[in-house]
Amino acid sequence: MINVGVVGATGYTGVELLRILVLHPEVSIQMVTSRSEEGVAVSSIFPNLREHLQLYFCAPDPDLLAECDLVFFATPHGTAMALVPELLAKGVKVIDLSADFRIKDAKLWSHWYGMEHTCPELLQEAVYGLPEVNRELIRKASLVANPGCYPTAVQLGFIPLLKNNLVDPGSLIADVKSGVSGAGRKASTGTLLCEASENFKAYGINGHRHQPEIVQGLNEQSKDLVNLTFMPHLVPMIRGIQASLYASLLKDTVDLQSLYEDFYSDEKFVDVLEAGLSPETRTVRGSNMCRLAVTQPEGSDKVVVLVAEDNLVKGAAGQAVQNMNIMYDLDESLGLNLVSVLP
Amino acid sequence: MINVGVVGATGYTGVELLRILVLHPEVSIQMVTSRSEEGVAVSSIFPNLREHLQLYFCAPDPDLLAECDLVFFATPHGTAMALVPELLAKGVKVIDLSADFRIKDAKLWSHWYGMEHTCPELLQEAVYGLPEVNRELIRKASLVANPGCYPTAVQLGFIPLLKNNLVDPGSLIADVKSGVSGAGRKASTGTLLCEASENFKAYGINGHRHQPEIVQGLNEQSKDLVNLTFMPHLVPMIRGIQASLYASLLKDTVDLQSLYEDFYSDEKFVDVLEAGLSPETRTVRGSNMCRLAVTQPEGSDKVVVLVAEDNLVKGAAGQAVQNMNIMYDLDESLGLNLVSVLP
Amino acid sequence: MINVGVVGATGYTGVELLRILVLHPEVSIQMVTSRSEEGVAVSSIFPNLREHLQLYFCAPDPDLLAECDLVFFATPHGTAMALVPELLAKGVKVIDLSADFRIKDAKLWSHWYGMEHTCPELLQEAVYGLPEVNRELIRKASLVANPGCYPTAVQLGFIPLLKNNLVDPGSLIADVKSGVSGAGRKASTGTLLCEASENFKAYGINGHRHQPEIVQGLNEQSKDLVNLTFMPHLVPMIRGIQASLYASLLKDTVDLQSLYEDFYSDEKFVDVLEAGLSPETRTVRGSNMCRLAVTQPEGSDKVVVLVAEDNLVKGAAGQAVQNMNIMYDLDESLGLNLVSVLP
Amino acid sequence: MINVGVVGATGYTGVELLRILVLHPEVSIQMVTSRSEEGVAVSSIFPNLREHLQLYFCAPDPDLLAECDLVFFATPHGTAMALVPELLAKGVKVIDLSADFRIKDAKLWSHWYGMEHTCPELLQEAVYGLPEVNRELIRKASLVANPGCYPTAVQLGFIPLLKNNLVDPGSLIADVKSGVSGAGRKASTGTLLCEASENFKAYGINGHRHQPEIVQGLNEQSKDLVNLTFMPHLVPMIRGIQASLYASLLKDTVDLQSLYEDFYSDEKFVDVLEAGLSPETRTVRGSNMCRLAVTQPEGSDKVVVLVAEDNLVKGAAGQAVQNMNIMYDLDESLGLNLVSVLP
Repeated sequence: MINVGVVGATGYTGVELLRILVLHPEVSIQMVTSRSEEGVAVSSIFPNLREHLQLYFCAPDPDLLAECDLVFFATPHGTAMALVPELLAKGVKVIDLSADFRIKDAKLWSHWYGMEHTCPELLQEAVYGLPEVNRELIRKASLVANPGCYPTAVQLGFIPLLKNNLVDPGSLIADVKSGVSGAGRKASTGTLLCEASENFKAYGINGHRHQPEIVQGLNEQSKDLVNLTFMPHLVPMIRGIQASLYASLLKDTVDLQSLYEDFYSDEKFVDVLEAGLSPETRTVRGSNMCRLAVTQPEGSDKVVVLVAEDNLVKGAAGQAVQNMNIMYDLDESLGLNLVSVLP
Repeated sequence: MINVGVVGATGYTGVELLRILVLHPEVSIQMVTSRSEEGVAVSSIFPNLREHLQLYFCAPDPDLLAECDLVFFATPHGTAMALVPELLAKGVKVIDLSADFRIKDAKLWSHWYGMEHTCPELLQEAVYGLPEVNRELIRKASLVANPGCYPTAVQLGFIPLLKNNLVDPGSLIADVKSGVSGAGRKASTGTLLCEASENFKAYGINGHRHQPEIVQGLNEQSKDLVNLTFMPHLVPMIRGIQASLYASLLKDTVDLQSLYEDFYSDEKFVDVLEAGLSPETRTVRGSNMCRLAVTQPEGSDKVVVLVAEDNLVKGAAGQAVQNMNIMYDLDESLGLNLVSVLP
Repeated sequence: MINVGVVGATGYTGVELLRILVLHPEVSIQMVTSRSEEGVAVSSIFPNLREHLQLYFCAPDPDLLAECDLVFFATPHGTAMALVPELLAKGVKVIDLSADFRIKDAKLWSHWYGMEHTCPELLQEAVYGLPEVNRELIRKASLVANPGCYPTAVQLGFIPLLKNNLVDPGSLIADVKSGVSGAGRKASTGTLLCEASENFKAYGINGHRHQPEIVQGLNEQSKDLVNLTFMPHLVPMIRGIQASLYASLLKDTVDLQSLYEDFYSDEKFVDVLEAGLSPETRTVRGSNMCRLAVTQPEGSDKVVVLVAEDNLVKGAAGQAVQNMNIMYDLDESLGLNLVSVLP
Repeated sequence: MINVGVVGATGYTGVELLRILVLHPEVSIQMVTSRSEEGVAVSSIFPNLREHLQLYFCAPDPDLLAECDLVFFATPHGTAMALVPELLAKGVKVIDLSADFRIKDAKLWSHWYGMEHTCPELLQEAVYGLPEVNRELIRKASLVANPGCYPTAVQLGFIPLLKNNLVDPGSLIADVKSGVSGAGRKASTGTLLCEASENFKAYGINGHRHQPEIVQGLNEQSKDLVNLTFMPHLVPMIRGIQASLYASLLKDTVDLQSLYEDFYSDEKFVDVLEAGLSPETRTVRGSNMCRLAVTQPEGSDKVVVLVAEDNLVKGAAGQAVQNMNIMYDLDESLGLNLVSVLP
């Protein structure tokens, strides 16, 4: 049994993590922290957990957290970096679902997140938790930086092309769409049902924090530096990310379908669809699967990769549990055998 | 291992049944039938099952079905009654999720369902599969008539009052609301997204088939015959039933809260909320739980019972699996430890 | 031309009022006030008005407002009563869309709205702006208290029965359902898309502020005091109210259909549907129409009235403009010839 | 007064056309045809028109239609071309909202629409009804081919760039998203609320009929032939199209913002947003406006144009009325002064 703590579980990645962990056969949830909800039953905030979790939120006390084997951070950025050094020093493993340890360059991080990084020395030690890329590093890691939701989808989509030098790395376009849960559970006018339903729009057109994270990850897989045009959109639904990725092909004679099928043949959580199909977000809602399709429009030199994932699962909490399973040498899919509820 | 077959699994109760059964530790799905989709991979119709079920739809051949221990019918009404007698004769157990065996009076059934009943002799033998009422009969049954979605919610809400003679049985009003999945997966203009979303209406105002089923069930629990005003409404969402039930109290001095908590204290799938709370459909989405609250408005002689369930789970497929567990002396919640995905 | 001002137009009733007023041929919008958005272009908050309104929000200065012929208040409760006495004294007419002047009994008002009423002397002078009841009083009024959204629907539904002594006034039940815009534009967790979509629930089960307003209105039309059980629900859609009203019939031989058709035959904004039809909220979305149907379930002594309206139009801004038209002896439907956008 | 007939008004473009025409001051609707609904009141299918249109559907009799000044076709493809030659011969003007006369090359049309064209001789005579491009031709036209919904958005977005030779015409990508009403009112499983809500996907990945129409239109504005990668997506909402358009800039020193503002400065139904804003579909819902924004991501050689329109208005019925206004020398915005209902 792994004794885990969850810091900051009043948001959507937090409750999603709890939903998965309460049924995980090798996990015992020791504590769930929240400053604002201290003393409140977790299930009174998240009634889907009424029969499954009897804990109360407690304050995030480092000494108490140090009694855990593993601590998940499901906090806004800036919180994890304040607690992680002490926990690591006490031998606790950490999986951070926030952005604090995703970007290796502290200055770049500060530019996008608007604050100083308080433990830049940990940035190199932190392992970027994309199992399909870094599985062996994750296995030995003490600190895993769990990827962002968009970065997971976009990297899994582009990497087979870049790794095989099939596309011009300067030609990348990612037109990405997310359900509203990506904006979190904080009260705000823009994500009210009355503002966000029956509406569709691009947002973040002056720059989005996930762009440098994606570029960092793609550059590691590409011979030449990538140039990425990244355009996020808000979809009037709760969950799901769909990405339509475009790139200019360098070679014309590649069997892209076989390439993708082979590339991901050993991956349990990447599903390459048969030619002609298009991944739908609802088929991965609540599951840890990332579905992909690849296609080349007739008469065009462009390749199009279509990707669907649940932003809160493969894009957050599910991938965090996948990383935990790897860190503890468990079956990578333990506790993640989740079937989407359809319809 | 119970070898099961599912007849007519191209609808929403069918896919929901499969979602639950693929993870049930004591079930092996032997065959899934559909005349219209014969030869088609089940997962090509329901891509949420891609990693979980590798079967193809086959035709509903009684001889093949007879190799199963148990057959579920997730068919439109009129189909099960054509196959069930032969299956029972061959020693196969049957759980019918359609309406064919729910009403004991064949004439009444014919009136509401517009066809002759072809095996009225089985109507008395069939056990109405509401575990909270008929658990011991279900345990010994060969043929279980799985309750309708509205009838499950309305009966679980009214029964504690009627059984304790606390309300005037002539005063019952059930204002019930259902998500659109209650109308099934058949193509129809009325349930298109463009017609059913951003809209709310009452429907079936000239009579609804679930009314006689509910009245039959309530009469069994009531000293005097009930009179029920039943008004269904369509909610612009996929899943969920909410029922607001009204009745005139005969006694004024009852602690309704304790009464309900005691009445359902041993039931795993009925959850009585603390006073002042209201059950939300999303907290039971995808789970087999039925949540209830009871309240008496200030200055009124009325009691109000609020009920929420997932129409496709406790109102259909989940309750069917609960019944199967009872029939096979398994833990009643085996395979039903489902946590709602929230948000 | 009527020179109007709108106080507090950053909410949903405010923008709805502006949507109607910008096309009203006899209205000139002079000023739109908001403390929080002073200096901001109205159309930058509400881009649907970009081509239609070139004003900027200004602070609510009574001297400036006094230059208007008519001031609408689309403010939270407690705001209008602070400004109205001064405006009335200066000869300005007022239509208050908030609750400040709806309830005649100042103590009752204070009980439900949690503050002292600062000008109780105006409560008797204020005319309750339900044109179908108070048209002649509205014509001469200086201060109109525009009805709440639920009260409009419930009163229009019950009044024909009560006025004709057809039902037991002690038996009234109103099961009402509202789209989320009824909760306003203020940021709050409970009305986020991720919390309120794909969900249905009753709310306000411990009492709702619209109940005393409805009871006051119904008592004026009833021989005996009414007893009303009032249960509001939240529908996962933006706009629309549907009410299902129940009462015990005293006489059995009434032609309810003709009664309702006759009762509302001269009303332009009440539409009685043919027998067997059910009013849908989408058919009145954006329009000032209130649609009704009346039915008596077979074998029951209950009458059921079904009502649909747009909570922001007939339930707020549209009715306010209807009242303005009456006050200024204009055609009552001027500027209100609005066709619902369907689908 | 223009006497108009509407052929095939049981679909969404049909009812939208009627919604606009019933309030148009210079139009008298003479007949509304439907084979399947002959004899049925139009308002019984579309209850939003109850107070506004008292016609019954009649059969599409060419002799009767010939009594109209102008006939709109809101039919599936293949219907208009069977009736139009006769109507034109009798001096009736025609605006065809279907695809029958949009593509100049009859063979190309047949390839995409799967049938022979029965009056290819009219293809050259037909004027493509995009007023921003063809206003003068429309003014003199007898037969207007009203553009498709996607083609309107994509052409209005790309044309300023192509006409000014600012981008590589071989580099065009249109990532377009449509609400479900684009799929029409026909019963189909894929557009049921339960299938299409809470879901997002690309579709038509093997080719979409709007692509050749767009390419034809763009080629007319471009020095060199364009190569367009066109990827449509389905958005879980009723109305609205958003297009994110990408192209490689040839020059780096252009003020794109001014270019777009100048290009459309005289257009009443194209609104160029201030720099940094993103057009939202809800702000044009029910209105004839097309909103645009143009931006160049930092460090990229790509220009991104964001476009929003209502697929049923500027993308269909509204543009048809705009064309009618032009053909009859009316104010181009007569009857089109529509304010979006927000929220």
